[in-house]
Amino acid sequence: MNYYAGVDLGGTNIKAGIVDESGKVVCKDLTPTNAGRPYQEVIKDIADLLNKVIAKSGIDKSAIKSIGVGNPGTCDIPNGIVIYASNIDFYNVPMRDEMHKYFDVPVYIDNDANCAALGEFYALDGDVSDMVFITLGTGVGGGIIINKRLYTGYNGTAAEFGHMMLKQGGIECSCGTKGCWENYASVTALIRITKEYAEKYPDSAVAERCKDGVSGRTAFEMAKMGDSGAKSIVDEWIGYVATGVVSVINLFQPQYVVIGGAISKEGNYLLDPIRAHQMKNAYSQIPNHTQIAVAKLGNDAGLVGSAFLGKGEI
Amino acid sequence: MNYYAGVDLGGTNIKAGIVDESGKVVCKDLTPTNAGRPYQEVIKDIADLLNKVIAKSGIDKSAIKSIGVGNPGTCDIPNGIVIYASNIDFYNVPMRDEMHKYFDVPVYIDNDANCAALGEFYALDGDVSDMVFITLGTGVGGGIIINKRLYTGYNGTAAEFGHMMLKQGGIECSCGTKGCWENYASVTALIRITKEYAEKYPDSAVAERCKDGVSGRTAFEMAKMGDSGAKSIVDEWIGYVATGVVSVINLFQPQYVVIGGAISKEGNYLLDPIRAHQMKNAYSQIPNHTQIAVAKLGNDAGLVGSAFLGKGEI
Repeated sequence: MNYYAGVDLGGTNIKAGIVDESGKVVCKDLTPTNAGRPYQEVIKDIADLLNKVIAKSGIDKSAIKSIGVGNPGTCDIPNGIVIYASNIDFYNVPMRDEMHKYFDVPVYIDNDANCAALGEFYALDGDVSDMVFITLGTGVGGGIIINKRLYTGYNGTAAEFGHMMLKQGGIECSCGTKGCWENYASVTALIRITKEYAEKYPDSAVAERCKDGVSGRTAFEMAKMGDSGAKSIVDEWIGYVATGVVSVINLFQPQYVVIGGAISKEGNYLLDPIRAHQMKNAYSQIPNHTQIAVAKLGNDAGLVGSAFLGKGEI
Repeated sequence: MNYYAGVDLGGTNIKAGIVDESGKVVCKDLTPTNAGRPYQEVIKDIADLLNKVIAKSGIDKSAIKSIGVGNPGTCDIPNGIVIYASNIDFYNVPMRDEMHKYFDVPVYIDNDANCAALGEFYALDGDVSDMVFITLGTGVGGGIIINKRLYTGYNGTAAEFGHMMLKQGGIECSCGTKGCWENYASVTALIRITKEYAEKYPDSAVAERCKDGVSGRTAFEMAKMGDSGAKSIVDEWIGYVATGVVSVINLFQPQYVVIGGAISKEGNYLLDPIRAHQMKNAYSQIPNHTQIAVAKLGNDAGLVGSAFLGKGEI
């Protein structure tokens, strides 16, 4: 059996794990990132964590075919360099070369959303060759699989789904333009819509509930309990998600669109209205249409995907 | 030297040609489609035209390695079937099998926009692997090249760029939704914007000029002659084009976005503001960014691309 090592480098924690050929996480562990330190220190911690996980797994080091590192930022993938990852203060960090000081297997890098996409791709059933992964969280991100491989564009920065225009001239985006999809379809946007509703209807049950704080779950929980105001919030937000998903389908027509992020735990309560919107509004009139599914791997997607960066390469 | 035969089947004319390995059209001719006839008659005319072109070219039939047919509609590419092409009344037409009654070389089919994309791809200089082609005409269409091959999605209907959302809730689209890009960035939209301006400012030079009829060139011609009203029309329209192009770049990050359609003859007058918009608004902050260019082949793009459907396949 071949094994692949993966590292999910985040703003808060470094996660490392060993994944077998089938995509099963054999062993994993984590350590704080302590972001802001020189990259050499962070990468030494990655190496120490990885060695610890390998030792704990009992797998012979020679069975580990490659190491993949998922990074929270933009990467020069062919050269193994993290160009920038501002939340961990990494700028032009030679990740691959630094990792090679500790390990002599091939090292691959990519960004975290692409790694999560690859992980979710390998978790799909059946013979799938094209998939788009969309993650709904603080922002909207994702990854593209074409012909069973990550498609990252000419410069490694493709799949910025959050910055696909949804409503030109709309809400101002962190990127400087107005109306990007992530200002409507992120969980941040769902929270904003919930708060706006509470302000507009201060006597509503939603407003009462919001006094205890608002999360992405607030409106979903209340809608499922039958509150019509919460239902209108959820409908509006899912409408924005669905509109962008239909754009993605009209462009890519993948076999699967997989939706990730914590909110994807809503399952069919989230997906059914998106599917209805697809059936009504997607452009293609032919019967074999894109399947929409929720992510399966949850927090392990980045780990499995980073490990599998080397799968098929070697 | 190998040669490839291409057919560009349109609503008005059937064009056929022989293309050499370098992409040069060696010989071509056309005949009316006379749309509405049984497909067997149309395809017999395709075969007759192709045989005529082959004879005229003086090329030995054995040097022609494949035939490609570009169709004005949705295709089942692997099975060689035109699923529907309403403007020529083709529904589930077994194009490949019918063509094989006349020719015993491999026959490939795809839709016309994909063929034009492939033609323009082969016309690019340098070693390019990823390109997005966008054609601005009555609607907005296009094609996607990934890894030097057409990417047509799981079901052959990808690259419907015109039906990417630009302004949710905006202008009603023929597809049934509101705000699709083609309602803002097509030449049809440019004409609408020009007419709206003329109605709003009946004493303007634009309104005076519109009395003689309006085309996609009207506002461009007047803007270039210094008319500020026409300039505002062109600016608005190019703004819509550019916003969609930036979405495409944020998703695909191809080496090239190539813009086709008759309006692309405006060259840098069209491209420079799009490039400025890209520099300001595209998400990626890394230096190696997508090049934006106009199409080179014009009306021959579909012919060259359809011929080259077989290139690399055999």
